Amino acid sequence: MSKGQETKSAILDEALAVASRVGFTGLSIGRLAEQTGMSKSGLFAHFQSKEQLQLQTLAHAKRRFVDTTVRPALTVPRGEKRLRELFERWLTWESQTLPGGCIFVTGSVEFDDQPGPMRDALVADQRDWLDTIATVVEAAVTEGDFRPDLDARQVAFELQALTLGFHHFARLLGDEHATDHARTAFEGILERARAR
Amino acid sequence: MSKGQETKSAILDEALAVASRVGFTGLSIGRLAEQTGMSKSGLFAHFQSKEQLQLQTLAHAKRRFVDTTVRPALTVPRGEKRLRELFERWLTWESQTLPGGCIFVTGSVEFDDQPGPMRDALVADQRDWLDTIATVVEAAVTEGDFRPDLDARQVAFELQALTLGFHHFARLLGDEHATDHARTAFEGILERARAR
Repeated sequence: MSKGQETKSAILDEALAVASRVGFTGLSIGRLAEQTGMSKSGLFAHFQSKEQLQLQTLAHAKRRFVDTTVRPALTVPRGEKRLRELFERWLTWESQTLPGGCIFVTGSVEFDDQPGPMRDALVADQRDWLDTIATVVEAAVTEGDFRPDLDARQVAFELQALTLGFHHFARLLGDEHATDHARTAFEGILERARAR
Repeated sequence: MSKGQETKSAILDEALAVASRVGFTGLSIGRLAEQTGMSKSGLFAHFQSKEQLQLQTLAHAKRRFVDTTVRPALTVPRGEKRLRELFERWLTWESQTLPGGCIFVTGSVEFDDQPGPMRDALVADQRDWLDTIATVVEAAVTEGDFRPDLDARQVAFELQALTLGFHHFARLLGDEHATDHARTAFEGILERARAR
């Protein structure tokens, strides 16, 4: 990375931390200036508008998510094992990577009723993520770990619901059993997916 | 209800519709004035502050939720049948009652990282809801519909995750299969809960 790219990437890391705590709606150039100690005019030169800041922060989140969660899981052998790796890495992403948890969950609820470029980008990201899960599930069917008539889209729905549930229990309710509940629910999904 | 109570209830219905679309954060006295055609000063007399408006709107939502979802489900005989009724009524609440879907889901994500009275109220509401689910599940164990070693809290977690998943697929992704996915996932929860 060039020096300029490094600076931008560091700013986007800060923006991501802010957005994970207060949502994309609360992420403004003014707030980011306070957080980073940079001038507002300097930040305007990078982002031009609040919407551009939001969109670039989301794109940055996606790169980090793919680097830390999706790509490493794909190095694990195809099958149930790979799905487990993907799930465990998602848990880490949600629990440890950002101060306010998974930014895609936060953004999804913020923008679900607000048409525009942010909603479009979030929908595209979510579809990519669901496709990733479904592809990993289908590979597990091919490998014989899961039953041939398994509906991979149904598994993707249930896994996505599970991650939303975990975010809710861990973040809002501060439930100390959230991780145990999530792992038990995941085992239930696997159990029903396995070859009979 | 007195005339004054009727007016207030009608205002809170409007406030609920606004909050379900744009979140509690977007629910202001100014916006509500535009929506209802009432004067801002008249609304201030009812609510005093934005936070009071948010809190009273949330309390209003809870009354409506209890009236339309919880109480009618409790008239159905104890057991799996009652859990089904609760789930189906929740689906109706989420899909048909408010223009932007379940307000508790929206509020939960908005306030999960923002301490204060709204977060406290949302947490209390969510705990009541989870207690309701767990109690209905425990009754189904007593009735012999579900196995004796069933963890009712785990079922409450999974059912809550499922409703969050449904909100996400139906609202953000506009997925036409959301209802089918939710019902299939619910049958999976029941299957694992049943006496073996």
